[in-house]
Amino acid sequence: MAEKGTLTRPMLERIPEYLKYLRTAETENVRSVSATTVSRALGLGEVMVRKDLGSVSGEGRPKTGYDTSALISRLEGILDFGGAASAVVIGAGKLGYALCGYRGFAEYGISITAAFDTDSGKTLNPASPCPVYPLSELKSYCLFHNVGIAIITVPADSAQAVCDIAVAGGVRAIWNFAPVKLTLPETVPVKNENLASSLALLAAQALPRR
Amino acid sequence: MAEKGTLTRPMLERIPEYLKYLRTAETENVRSVSATTVSRALGLGEVMVRKDLGSVSGEGRPKTGYDTSALISRLEGILDFGGAASAVVIGAGKLGYALCGYRGFAEYGISITAAFDTDSGKTLNPASPCPVYPLSELKSYCLFHNVGIAIITVPADSAQAVCDIAVAGGVRAIWNFAPVKLTLPETVPVKNENLASSLALLAAQALPRR
Repeated sequence: MAEKGTLTRPMLERIPEYLKYLRTAETENVRSVSATTVSRALGLGEVMVRKDLGSVSGEGRPKTGYDTSALISRLEGILDFGGAASAVVIGAGKLGYALCGYRGFAEYGISITAAFDTDSGKTLNPASPCPVYPLSELKSYCLFHNVGIAIITVPADSAQAVCDIAVAGGVRAIWNFAPVKLTLPETVPVKNENLASSLALLAAQALPRR
Repeated sequence: MAEKGTLTRPMLERIPEYLKYLRTAETENVRSVSATTVSRALGLGEVMVRKDLGSVSGEGRPKTGYDTSALISRLEGILDFGGAASAVVIGAGKLGYALCGYRGFAEYGISITAAFDTDSGKTLNPASPCPVYPLSELKSYCLFHNVGIAIITVPADSAQAVCDIAVAGGVRAIWNFAPVKLTLPETVPVKNENLASSLALLAAQALPRR
């Protein structure tokens, strides 16, 4: 079965595809599916699909393959982080708003429940896709709502301070969009997302230098 | 000297830091700097800094190190993509707006000059951080302005179509935020940015499963 350590990003990216296909099959009363069927329907390599499905649900039965409903449950289980898959955005600027309103997270069972900002004017913005609270409430909100992930979209010079508050509020991981290296307890993983350097690296690969 | 192939993301992320430090040193009439000085000032490993600077500017002179101005020019040269570092955003939704208004790109000499959207209402939005044009003008705009990179933030089902238009307009790379695999000519590199799976992977590492 897929454990935390063995789950790879490419496989994680395929799970919503598998689920979409399997849920449709289930509504059409297709009781069992084989890796071959799934791979053909989705245009994916059969060996890879067999490995993916095997890692979440063991080997399929000979000839018939996997029970459709059971496979759906297994795949949903991978994306089921209990109540802890809620996230908050810290910094309600353009990027913060964009992330709050991004619908793709729901496919992975993750919801952004609130945003926080020092600018209290933003807390009243009716255009915000999620409620915006003052930064002073961040810690108590995280503790009370058992928030799993803090998404940091504040400027570089205030990132460490808000990160410390989120960690004090018990968040278990940080997704950092501020272009700065954060200092964190070893138990709290951080993923740095430097959009500027991502774009620059692509430019460096593709564009001629002067 | 650093060539396209040897430029790594971690080094690319350090270049703005180096430049910030060196430009300050230059204004303070510091004529030459050593890898040791730079590494100490920035709190970075000396071996790494020596390697970075060596890769862009060869070995420094014994004792004195690098000529400050020459080193600045070399580092700026890495980020100088000529006129081709302009980018356009296709899809003027929340994420598109956030990218248009993101200031970090300027550090790498890249500017987003326009956004495109099918919704002509968006072309009149005065809050947009860059002009929004109708999608029908995308190809001619890219050709005329020698646009290097197209950033795709449309929904998955229209991503391939807008990508094809951008490629017909001569863009040399695609930065794709739509959760779909794009088909492209081999000469046009694509970087896929799946925000949802990035967050899900972090959740999978950090949060307990039910």
